[in-house]
Amino acid sequence: MATKEEIEAFMKTDFPQAKCTVEAVGEQLATVKHPIGFDELRPGGTVSGPVLMAVADYALYVAILGEIGIVSLTVTTSLTINFMRKPSSTKDIIGKCTLLKVGKSLVVGEVSLYSEGDENAVAHVVGTYSIPR
Amino acid sequence: MATKEEIEAFMKTDFPQAKCTVEAVGEQLATVKHPIGFDELRPGGTVSGPVLMAVADYALYVAILGEIGIVSLTVTTSLTINFMRKPSSTKDIIGKCTLLKVGKSLVVGEVSLYSEGDENAVAHVVGTYSIPR
Amino acid sequence: MATKEEIEAFMKTDFPQAKCTVEAVGEQLATVKHPIGFDELRPGGTVSGPVLMAVADYALYVAILGEIGIVSLTVTTSLTINFMRKPSSTKDIIGKCTLLKVGKSLVVGEVSLYSEGDENAVAHVVGTYSIPR
Amino acid sequence: MATKEEIEAFMKTDFPQAKCTVEAVGEQLATVKHPIGFDELRPGGTVSGPVLMAVADYALYVAILGEIGIVSLTVTTSLTINFMRKPSSTKDIIGKCTLLKVGKSLVVGEVSLYSEGDENAVAHVVGTYSIPR
Repeated sequence: MATKEEIEAFMKTDFPQAKCTVEAVGEQLATVKHPIGFDELRPGGTVSGPVLMAVADYALYVAILGEIGIVSLTVTTSLTINFMRKPSSTKDIIGKCTLLKVGKSLVVGEVSLYSEGDENAVAHVVGTYSIPR
Repeated sequence: MATKEEIEAFMKTDFPQAKCTVEAVGEQLATVKHPIGFDELRPGGTVSGPVLMAVADYALYVAILGEIGIVSLTVTTSLTINFMRKPSSTKDIIGKCTLLKVGKSLVVGEVSLYSEGDENAVAHVVGTYSIPR
Repeated sequence: MATKEEIEAFMKTDFPQAKCTVEAVGEQLATVKHPIGFDELRPGGTVSGPVLMAVADYALYVAILGEIGIVSLTVTTSLTINFMRKPSSTKDIIGKCTLLKVGKSLVVGEVSLYSEGDENAVAHVVGTYSIPR
Repeated sequence: MATKEEIEAFMKTDFPQAKCTVEAVGEQLATVKHPIGFDELRPGGTVSGPVLMAVADYALYVAILGEIGIVSLTVTTSLTINFMRKPSSTKDIIGKCTLLKVGKSLVVGEVSLYSEGDENAVAHVVGTYSIPR
């Protein structure tokens, strides 16, 4: 119920350190993008795992806001990530979220994470969020 | 098989951005500490979820190195986190890892995360790592 | 690379107690069906959680066999299930699996579970399997 | 707050097919036992994964009832299992549960599963339960 612009404004306030941008949101979907630079890389040239988790968490939050509106107290209750392929050190990370259930108090969604331009996901995430009553 | 000093030196090289310190390691256990400041906080005064995931990932890696020695290609294959309580915005985060299985190719461990000085965990993590042959 | 018939024959031998049938398999996908009767129900009229987990495990295994051929030593290494909606007590359970990664030693897949005829999933599973070398 | 006898009576009614017995319960802990016979085995002589998941689910439920009393609508919302060692085909399975958080609406607990008499866990589970308001 919140627009892309409303969500972007909210996320800048609520996650001031986040580097993610909202590419698209709506209909229980969201796409976000995270630039990759020195801060996100590990020696050997790969994106650090916690950065991927952060992008997934962000994508899930954006998708939920797009569905239920700006509810700042929504909190992550669990997150499971499977790392599948080595991300590129020179491509941005794209996170594509699909909500699987939007209940009154619990939301479940999944996120596939990609190195931009590659169709094989580097990681897959399932997360659950609690919505305050 | 690696000492605390060897692991600290390795982690500084392999995770140059990490703020964690190794408090103790050995006998399939590890304790790490992460300072909490502006970069780790969210409005409302709580530690961001991805910071907690990063501390858990770090604690698992340290515990594994302590057990199998410096093997730089060890990679996280999966991680599940359950967020249980709101962390304090003014306390460091402590991660205590226990390895549950150290196999030839797969390691499984769990981490309890605490706001320093509080005995109730703020989050619980189970992670799996792949060891190259 | 194994056909539906080969997989069905193998599963009857390798999982003699399973009630699942293989509806379709191929191209990194599989669909299985589990009949629901007294043994699968709990008072109040819902399918028990462990039955759903068993159907997901079966669907993942069938999809893997369809991709890599009959490899009897393939073993589940992890499974995460999120229960989302109450299953019908009078409908069969359908499991639809999609493999996310087929590596040399590790396979990752997801399964959506449905009460037959309902398009909203009752549960979602992500599983990982180890393939012997 | 429910006694072992009250929980056993309730579980017989609520999970009529379950073969588990309650060995001990109280103080946010529970120990359960599941006999292993033909129905639980797979060719090659190991306990099937879904049986282990069922034992963990049972142990979590018993521990929760021991803590909050008989609340029949408590439902599993998520469960993550890591399989770590091959269970014995001739030993009962023991499940030892520890609750990690008992909130007003959400409970988190972990379970270690053992082949009786072996101190190395065959699998580890983290589960979350929702308590109706």
